[in-house]
Amino acid sequence: MNVSLTSPLDMHLHVRQDSMLRVVAPLSAEHFAGAVIMPNLLPPVDHLERLLWYTEEVRSAVGTATFEPYMTLFFRDYTEQELEAAKPHLLGIKLYPAGATTNSEAGVQHISAMDHVFRIMQDLDIPLLVHGETHGFVMDREREFCEVYKHLATTYPRLRITMEHITTQDSVQLLDRFENLFATVTAHHLVITLDDVVGGLMNPHLFCKPIAKRPEDRDALLQAALAAHPKIMLGSDSAPHPVSSKECPGCAAGVFTAPILLPLLAELFAQHGALDRLQDFVSSNAQRIYRVTPPHKVVTLQDVPMTIPPMYDTVVPMWAGRTLGWSVTAVH
Amino acid sequence: MNVSLTSPLDMHLHVRQDSMLRVVAPLSAEHFAGAVIMPNLLPPVDHLERLLWYTEEVRSAVGTATFEPYMTLFFRDYTEQELEAAKPHLLGIKLYPAGATTNSEAGVQHISAMDHVFRIMQDLDIPLLVHGETHGFVMDREREFCEVYKHLATTYPRLRITMEHITTQDSVQLLDRFENLFATVTAHHLVITLDDVVGGLMNPHLFCKPIAKRPEDRDALLQAALAAHPKIMLGSDSAPHPVSSKECPGCAAGVFTAPILLPLLAELFAQHGALDRLQDFVSSNAQRIYRVTPPHKVVTLQDVPMTIPPMYDTVVPMWAGRTLGWSVTAVH
Repeated sequence: MNVSLTSPLDMHLHVRQDSMLRVVAPLSAEHFAGAVIMPNLLPPVDHLERLLWYTEEVRSAVGTATFEPYMTLFFRDYTEQELEAAKPHLLGIKLYPAGATTNSEAGVQHISAMDHVFRIMQDLDIPLLVHGETHGFVMDREREFCEVYKHLATTYPRLRITMEHITTQDSVQLLDRFENLFATVTAHHLVITLDDVVGGLMNPHLFCKPIAKRPEDRDALLQAALAAHPKIMLGSDSAPHPVSSKECPGCAAGVFTAPILLPLLAELFAQHGALDRLQDFVSSNAQRIYRVTPPHKVVTLQDVPMTIPPMYDTVVPMWAGRTLGWSVTAVH
Repeated sequence: MNVSLTSPLDMHLHVRQDSMLRVVAPLSAEHFAGAVIMPNLLPPVDHLERLLWYTEEVRSAVGTATFEPYMTLFFRDYTEQELEAAKPHLLGIKLYPAGATTNSEAGVQHISAMDHVFRIMQDLDIPLLVHGETHGFVMDREREFCEVYKHLATTYPRLRITMEHITTQDSVQLLDRFENLFATVTAHHLVITLDDVVGGLMNPHLFCKPIAKRPEDRDALLQAALAAHPKIMLGSDSAPHPVSSKECPGCAAGVFTAPILLPLLAELFAQHGALDRLQDFVSSNAQRIYRVTPPHKVVTLQDVPMTIPPMYDTVVPMWAGRTLGWSVTAVH
């Protein structure tokens, strides 16, 4: 069995900076034709000059023209002039509730105080990408945030809003209620639940934000992805941390999946007889939703086993040491 | 402010074997007049000879006559003769659903297959101590197990059953529905929720089974403890693991609290104006429920700060490095 995917896209990716950037960016570029690059550096990517600098950093780390970094700005109180100037250089603006994830301390405290920015974004047709979690109890944060999504979707009906890395049944349902809501889903949230994180031995390498939820949540996400739901895109949220920041008393949130994404997804979709719908999930939906045309790249996967390495440089990948039934066998 | 506690008891304690036993047992003996010693060694303590051997091991590690180890056998298919012979040497029998916690692989798969053992225990008036979790989703395991408690409590109305380390509102409510149900509660489940484990950075030293639950669960446990609920006893489930088994990819379940239990509880009860009810929670209820008379020991605590050490030998305690407002200032 095999499947060929045209220009796979990872619509939510963390590639960091400096030495980490040089380790992880090429791994994504090997299998993907492009990725949405998250702006949560320290300090965040929140003005044009830094955006252009970071774009060059990513391009230089990748070292190939067959991978397009779709850049994002970190949401703040931008002026119309700033956004007009930045628009040609970005895919969207990423909104973090303050403190919700790695380096999000500069994020927004109160959504409604930013109404004028949302209005400008709507007028300029700049998509809004949202880490949708409140500061409530860890299992409730995404569900509670649905109220914010409803508010944004109804107040700005022409603003394209992406609910990033959704993890609950509620979020999947919300997607169908508002025309201007879209979503990314990670690969790991299609296959794990909280049981995999803390149900047996505790696994820091499966600890991420949003935390993996209940079996019925995972099943809802999986069914939507397998059905090629037209508003759902792969966004891996692959988030590398050095092993010293994971296997320690204060373990950082993030699952590193970039190099195993396509094999994992091919195996999963094949298991469910849905290989013919993988193209939509990993590229076609995103191209249509974001109106982008990535570099042409054809990635072929076959049911040839691949054992996941224990480490990529200092980073332990998801399911290190496990053997997947599929692997990438050709990239053209 | 100060409080004097007479013969504090820890009704659920893991002291392990060998070098770990020699590190942790004296720490409990320093503040407590006795403790219920869990039998989940490898192999388990499941016959009289091993029970007597383990009793001597614990006594020898403790090295003081003012600490009584209340021993337990690991539940299995015992004969009446075995239980009659063991009865003078134990406090109860500990039932583990197979695979639910550390070294529980030898536990029971199907409760009803063991009806004859429960009947013998009821006839001999040997208490049943239960780790009450199913193999379901991690946040549901204790709630699902309530059905087993109901079955046991109604089928064996004269059998004293202790729901060990309860963590949910449901369990607190169940306690009031059946005369022969009792419960232990840990100190950590009075103060943490799943948010403390995986809501911010992930904390392996707060990872335990049952996993800490929702805020409303913690609040229900706390209210019951502060109210000196007559069927609730302190059972710390203090469970030491070397740091190498905690800060690693497959982190073992267990929170090590033994040396900080009484300061933590004194501070907590003082904060809620309930210091006068701490004696019931840490000793009087247990003495009445189990009909035991521990060695006489008076432990005085004062609102004198204590900073929790980073390690006890190889073991990281709960809240290492944090300063508690209370400490033990005298033991007579």
